[in-house]
Amino acid sequence: MPQVKVGLIGFGTVGAGMVEVLINNRQLIEDRVGAEIVLKKIADLDIDSDRGVKIDTTFLTTDAMEIVNDPEIDIVVELMGGCDQAMEYILMAMEKGKHVVTANKALIAEYGKLLFEMAERYGVDIAFEASVAGGIPIIRVLKEGLAANQIKAVLAILNGTANYILTRMTGEGLSFDEALSIAKRLGYAEADPTLDIDGSDAAHKLTIVISLAFGFPFKYENVYKEGIDGVSPEDIRFAGEFGYCIKLLAIAREVDGDIEARVHPAFVPLDHILANVNEAYNAVYVEGDFTGPTLFYGLGAGRRPTGSAVVSDLIDIARNQVKGIARRVSPISFARPPAKELSLRPMDQIVTDYYFRFSAVDSPGVLSKISGILGANNISIASVIQKSRETHGSVPIVMLTHEAKESNVRKSLELIDKLGIVTEKTVLFRVEKKTGI
Amino acid sequence: MPQVKVGLIGFGTVGAGMVEVLINNRQLIEDRVGAEIVLKKIADLDIDSDRGVKIDTTFLTTDAMEIVNDPEIDIVVELMGGCDQAMEYILMAMEKGKHVVTANKALIAEYGKLLFEMAERYGVDIAFEASVAGGIPIIRVLKEGLAANQIKAVLAILNGTANYILTRMTGEGLSFDEALSIAKRLGYAEADPTLDIDGSDAAHKLTIVISLAFGFPFKYENVYKEGIDGVSPEDIRFAGEFGYCIKLLAIAREVDGDIEARVHPAFVPLDHILANVNEAYNAVYVEGDFTGPTLFYGLGAGRRPTGSAVVSDLIDIARNQVKGIARRVSPISFARPPAKELSLRPMDQIVTDYYFRFSAVDSPGVLSKISGILGANNISIASVIQKSRETHGSVPIVMLTHEAKESNVRKSLELIDKLGIVTEKTVLFRVEKKTGI
Repeated sequence: MPQVKVGLIGFGTVGAGMVEVLINNRQLIEDRVGAEIVLKKIADLDIDSDRGVKIDTTFLTTDAMEIVNDPEIDIVVELMGGCDQAMEYILMAMEKGKHVVTANKALIAEYGKLLFEMAERYGVDIAFEASVAGGIPIIRVLKEGLAANQIKAVLAILNGTANYILTRMTGEGLSFDEALSIAKRLGYAEADPTLDIDGSDAAHKLTIVISLAFGFPFKYENVYKEGIDGVSPEDIRFAGEFGYCIKLLAIAREVDGDIEARVHPAFVPLDHILANVNEAYNAVYVEGDFTGPTLFYGLGAGRRPTGSAVVSDLIDIARNQVKGIARRVSPISFARPPAKELSLRPMDQIVTDYYFRFSAVDSPGVLSKISGILGANNISIASVIQKSRETHGSVPIVMLTHEAKESNVRKSLELIDKLGIVTEKTVLFRVEKKTGI
Repeated sequence: MPQVKVGLIGFGTVGAGMVEVLINNRQLIEDRVGAEIVLKKIADLDIDSDRGVKIDTTFLTTDAMEIVNDPEIDIVVELMGGCDQAMEYILMAMEKGKHVVTANKALIAEYGKLLFEMAERYGVDIAFEASVAGGIPIIRVLKEGLAANQIKAVLAILNGTANYILTRMTGEGLSFDEALSIAKRLGYAEADPTLDIDGSDAAHKLTIVISLAFGFPFKYENVYKEGIDGVSPEDIRFAGEFGYCIKLLAIAREVDGDIEARVHPAFVPLDHILANVNEAYNAVYVEGDFTGPTLFYGLGAGRRPTGSAVVSDLIDIARNQVKGIARRVSPISFARPPAKELSLRPMDQIVTDYYFRFSAVDSPGVLSKISGILGANNISIASVIQKSRETHGSVPIVMLTHEAKESNVRKSLELIDKLGIVTEKTVLFRVEKKTGI
């Protein structure tokens, strides 16, 4: 039976998961692939800690170069994280004709273009299923399953920590801080959860998804980003009254040859399948021109799901190797640059529905003043709830608008927030209405 | 640019969808594949009807043998349906070294073993993404995306017609007949909807899913089957009171080295993601040993989604052809028979929770008699609703049980239905409790 030899750089959580899959499902994988996937060496600075997997300690080394330089190794798996050092090892491995598998979303999102070019130059595969949405095989879905489709829109819940926090806030009426501290205690959030909460992690993943869906290396800096720390129990409650919940969405949408790319908390209709994605689950909703709405759901993080995603890439490359080929499908699914490269639609040009929560003094004429400014800026109101109870000496006025342009919205809110009757900065959420589901 | 030439046998709904994808997304597909997928000939007995796609009429023929015998054609797409004639064309095409793409679920479910053997003998690919769940790329997910996993369970909504009918019954309290006639009027059900309603269609699809998930050609006859015509608005209402809805589920589950395979209406907890799959949508919930719960959702039928699934297979084979290979992944995802072939668990040996609706005379001691028989057969009751209002001179007693064995359930109900106090045959539904989602 042919053998495919693997070296692993980075023996952390995902690395241990990968090793566990290879040990537990060795027979199954051999049966499926018709080749043996042999783990030959593992490099990590820490070779002493117990990872809970049985591993021959002679496999372990602190020197990643032993893997990069080992002529027997066919595939290098990079799970060390970070950018500079990881990039260096990957490029050296490619130069030596080794295929690369990585879960490093920041690296792929920020340096994908270079990495894909180098992989092409050296004729090797680079695979990164584990970089987006853990156990959900969304990379393969975009590269192969939906390959016959023009992708029209992607709406995704790509950060399990943020989704867990919002689920707790919604279910139990907790504040953001309360939910965050529960998430930390239960291991859903790290000690420093900044990247999960401010949308950076989701933006990295969205960058990768866009590159695959639309066929060009999208720039991470071009993703508009807002975090969930501004979400309050009050807005979640009002969302519910209007028939919505609040989710941190990563959105890419083709609009008239432009592409929108944004990560922010958004109102999602309660009867949309995405509204039912709770706890630490991830989901990617993809609308193809022929498939229509599809959704791919599962655990977006964790040792076991992410480990199995890494191994699915090993299987893919092993299947190539059994046939004596490589690069059967290009890393971003396009054998050549697509005829139609989309240009970025600036954030102030997007058109969507909005939710506003105004804090205003409780006096007659307030609503008229506010709606006057909105009307003058082409923003029409779909529904309003005006509460009479006082909050800190002011009343909330909440409303949903019809479709409006972001630039008009910003201009209006700037004017409204200067009104004497308005007591606090107006809260804004974008409303993602049902898109065919 | 290399060309891959395709002949289509069967120019019906799905065939027209496939042609539409190839026309509309020609450029995109070329960019992705790096080859041109050229439709060379279409065979159908009816070459006159307008299918709403622009096609050079010189492509059309009434003689499928022109396609089978055309030495230029690389891939034969069989979309004529039926078994005997389709099989004949497919085998002849394979013999001539042509790859085969089909959407024919009955054919794959009932003759898959033979077809896969012949494909192996002739060294060609046979692909059938469109045979299960339309636009959802579930075949690829099982063969590749989740390939590192032992599949533990599949729970799927695989018939859009049945799901549409149950959605209408649940939403509007309609009877089965009322919902069916709406489904017919709106085109969700065919004139003869038998196969959709009695579970046969879902059972065909489940047979295919099992073969891929567990790696051996499962026998269609071994799928246990119950239709939805026995579902009443009353049971849907009681399900709601207990926190469930009723879905036609196709279930495959590995239990201690056995496999359960069954299609029947089942209680699904309202907070399970499957409970939120409504209208004509399909969804496949897959539990892998490492991924944990995953769900794949989309339109399970229709010209456009199914057409795009056919083209995803064409793309797959074209990508092989560009690399000069075939049979990179075996049709059922296993390069060799799996070490562990599961044996069928007979239906009377399954263990699950149950819902019973007894119709009994309204007198004291009834519940005691019924629960006595259940208790004597090791069936313990989880909750009971006893309504006082009379229905046709009897009262309904509904209950949920804890886990019980099907044989014990059947034995008990036989005894209970013979009691003088019981006025009608007891209604039974199986309850699929949350499995980790």
